[in-house]
Amino acid sequence: MELRIDRQALVPVVQQIVDALVCWLHCNEVAPGVRLPAVRQIARINLLSQSCVLQACERLVVQGVLESRKGVGFVVATRELAVQVRQDDWWLQDAELKPGPASCELQLGCGGLPESWRETDDLSYAIRQVSRTDMAGLFNYSTSLGLPALRQQIRKSLEKLDINVDDSRVLTTAGASQGLDLIVRTLLKPGDCVVVESPGYPMLFDLLRLHGVSMLEVPRTPHGPDVCVLETLLLKHRPRGLFINSFHHNPTGCSLVPMVAQRLLQLTKQNDVLVIEDDVYADLHSGTGTRLAALDDSVIYVGSYSKTLSSSLRVGFVVAGAEVISRLAEVKMISSMGASRFCESVMTCLLANGAYRKLVQRQRQRLNTDRQATLQLLEDAGWEVFGKPVAGLFIWARSRTSDCAQVQAEARRHGVLLSSATAFSPVGEATDWQRINVACARDPRARAFFRATASNRPQAF
Amino acid sequence: MELRIDRQALVPVVQQIVDALVCWLHCNEVAPGVRLPAVRQIARINLLSQSCVLQACERLVVQGVLESRKGVGFVVATRELAVQVRQDDWWLQDAELKPGPASCELQLGCGGLPESWRETDDLSYAIRQVSRTDMAGLFNYSTSLGLPALRQQIRKSLEKLDINVDDSRVLTTAGASQGLDLIVRTLLKPGDCVVVESPGYPMLFDLLRLHGVSMLEVPRTPHGPDVCVLETLLLKHRPRGLFINSFHHNPTGCSLVPMVAQRLLQLTKQNDVLVIEDDVYADLHSGTGTRLAALDDSVIYVGSYSKTLSSSLRVGFVVAGAEVISRLAEVKMISSMGASRFCESVMTCLLANGAYRKLVQRQRQRLNTDRQATLQLLEDAGWEVFGKPVAGLFIWARSRTSDCAQVQAEARRHGVLLSSATAFSPVGEATDWQRINVACARDPRARAFFRATASNRPQAF
Repeated sequence: MELRIDRQALVPVVQQIVDALVCWLHCNEVAPGVRLPAVRQIARINLLSQSCVLQACERLVVQGVLESRKGVGFVVATRELAVQVRQDDWWLQDAELKPGPASCELQLGCGGLPESWRETDDLSYAIRQVSRTDMAGLFNYSTSLGLPALRQQIRKSLEKLDINVDDSRVLTTAGASQGLDLIVRTLLKPGDCVVVESPGYPMLFDLLRLHGVSMLEVPRTPHGPDVCVLETLLLKHRPRGLFINSFHHNPTGCSLVPMVAQRLLQLTKQNDVLVIEDDVYADLHSGTGTRLAALDDSVIYVGSYSKTLSSSLRVGFVVAGAEVISRLAEVKMISSMGASRFCESVMTCLLANGAYRKLVQRQRQRLNTDRQATLQLLEDAGWEVFGKPVAGLFIWARSRTSDCAQVQAEARRHGVLLSSATAFSPVGEATDWQRINVACARDPRARAFFRATASNRPQAF
Repeated sequence: MELRIDRQALVPVVQQIVDALVCWLHCNEVAPGVRLPAVRQIARINLLSQSCVLQACERLVVQGVLESRKGVGFVVATRELAVQVRQDDWWLQDAELKPGPASCELQLGCGGLPESWRETDDLSYAIRQVSRTDMAGLFNYSTSLGLPALRQQIRKSLEKLDINVDDSRVLTTAGASQGLDLIVRTLLKPGDCVVVESPGYPMLFDLLRLHGVSMLEVPRTPHGPDVCVLETLLLKHRPRGLFINSFHHNPTGCSLVPMVAQRLLQLTKQNDVLVIEDDVYADLHSGTGTRLAALDDSVIYVGSYSKTLSSSLRVGFVVAGAEVISRLAEVKMISSMGASRFCESVMTCLLANGAYRKLVQRQRQRLNTDRQATLQLLEDAGWEVFGKPVAGLFIWARSRTSDCAQVQAEARRHGVLLSSATAFSPVGEATDWQRINVACARDPRARAFFRATASNRPQAF
């Protein structure tokens, strides 16, 4: 049993062993009841200490993946549980591919930073701090708008993007997802129609479908939505709203340019269209850039810390006019009794002590290096790149020399998992463009995959 | 400035000072810019150490309530923030009264345990444990059904209530509130009608109104819903569902008896009515008692840890048939990307290491003593008690000798805040019955209030 352990990664070795063991169990479809190789054997083969391997196995016992049998050692737990762990991930496997131990493959199209990028120290410190000093944070409900101290910090960080609002216009949410859900369920009704970008964010499409809101597609260009198409759509269909992922657009990685932003706001103002700006990748950008919410204070702005600090804490926010905020807050309380006060306190601590600011600085630097390297890799492999992103997590690209089936086959051969070809289309149309997560693209499996697509014969010549 | 500090309470003294200072600022409507008395003076008057008072003031600076001015000391921060802290609590002040520092009054009708009952040690240990050892818990999304290890623990604890299901029928939610919201938005549609208990849970009424679902009232007797009225409602209106808070009913504190449970299930089965059993107070009961979900596996069961361990973590769950669970899980993911994995891991840890079991044992014992004492207090004051609850948090009672206005006036005079007279009615009808939280009723202010209502002259004789 050979485990993939990265001694440079910030993930503790024991956790890496846990992940690698789960991965090995799944990939080899190990049956329940089967005995694991002895701890000392696993340790020897992988040049690991026996105590690390033992700790990892014991954690898997707590998680219900292994059982410890006296005189036998560690055996795989009942099938029921093992199967569930897998089925349970159906969601993230499809639309928003998730990095993690549930799959062995490199998830080259995943929507967040890989676990090896995550940094434990500051987050763990803030968590211990709150758990020791903040009784209300440990036990109480939060307030309907969210913790005042957190909203104050959010307001301050928005000033850097030229979004100047007072705290009363900031509402915390359980991630951007709850923010979008509150907006849709409060401000739209079934039968309404809205404009969405294509390609765009798969979860938004699902959310709108769930609420019976119909979608009009505006093509995303490297500079923002195609404003000519937008104008036609607005005049012809009179939609109620426009959802836009202005910066580091998911999946293309491109950002809105000022001229498009201004034209877009002109059009939406003239046609009385609600603009919802999803800016969850904001902190992966070093410059300021023009946000729609900075140009027009009727724009509803959605942010999150899931993409940078932690997806587990579920902390996000919405900025809107006072009346909208109060309606959203009421629905938030009725439907969830507010966010986790503990998680809000932890986030406040990291924003106030400057640790979050330094974290995203490091992430940006590392992403810049990886993006350059990935663009080079893609060029060498003869891939076409959509608009050459200068910041953020994504590159949208397609092979010029291999067709879609060849690319998929090569990916599988190299242990690389690509995003679903239809995920980013509001109507489920297939594309040969791929969302490439630059933080995953320097993995040896990705390099080998890109090289292999280059050596395939072009189909059309 | 006299602060109310309880040296026996489990709440750390510094936190008590923080709460008492906020309380003092609000009650005295201290203007922004006003200087606080010197730290050494506050310490001397209240027999506290200066370092504790200083720490408390520094925390209030972080929270934006105070400002520290060089050469002046601590002054009250700008009005903007101070006002927000108050307005922000509008929600909980009304329907589900919340214990806490935002108000000075004793919230005799509040829906949870007071902060002085909360125990930090085990929770803080579990939080530190997860933050040190569980990388996925720190950073990743949870799975759509919730962490397998948590669902396993929930399944095991349900076995003690004779609810025997496999893990795949357990879905974690962000508190019972998200559970109820998912059920309503997934299984009901606007225009549907359902039966609710009267008096009943205010947030449920708001939730149903939010979704455009109309409510039929079934009176709650001390033994459960009035089944004769229920039968008439089912035959006449053909409602889609029935929501019931079977054990330690909110607000009456009474529990369903087996005979009523069986008749209720007969009726709902015959009429093809969905039964949703809200059992969030389950763990405050020492016996087992008959749950509807134990008698009939088509019943949808909702649970939570907010009432016992922590309202801040937002961990609850729903038990239902496999098909319903998979629909709820899909909506949960689309609308929130799942619960906080960190909070789920903390809860798993406390369930697995037995700390949660011991915590609720202590809470039950303490509640039993307090309930007996409160019932005696009420008897002495000539109050009528609804069905004499034997477990749980609530007593539903009204004064026989004072009318409603007199009771309200006495409450205010003694620094006691009662629940809104209309909160527990689905149609907002006023009642002279009061929800008494037994964990708050032994406070000297409550005793004095009850005694005062006894000495008022009866109106009718």
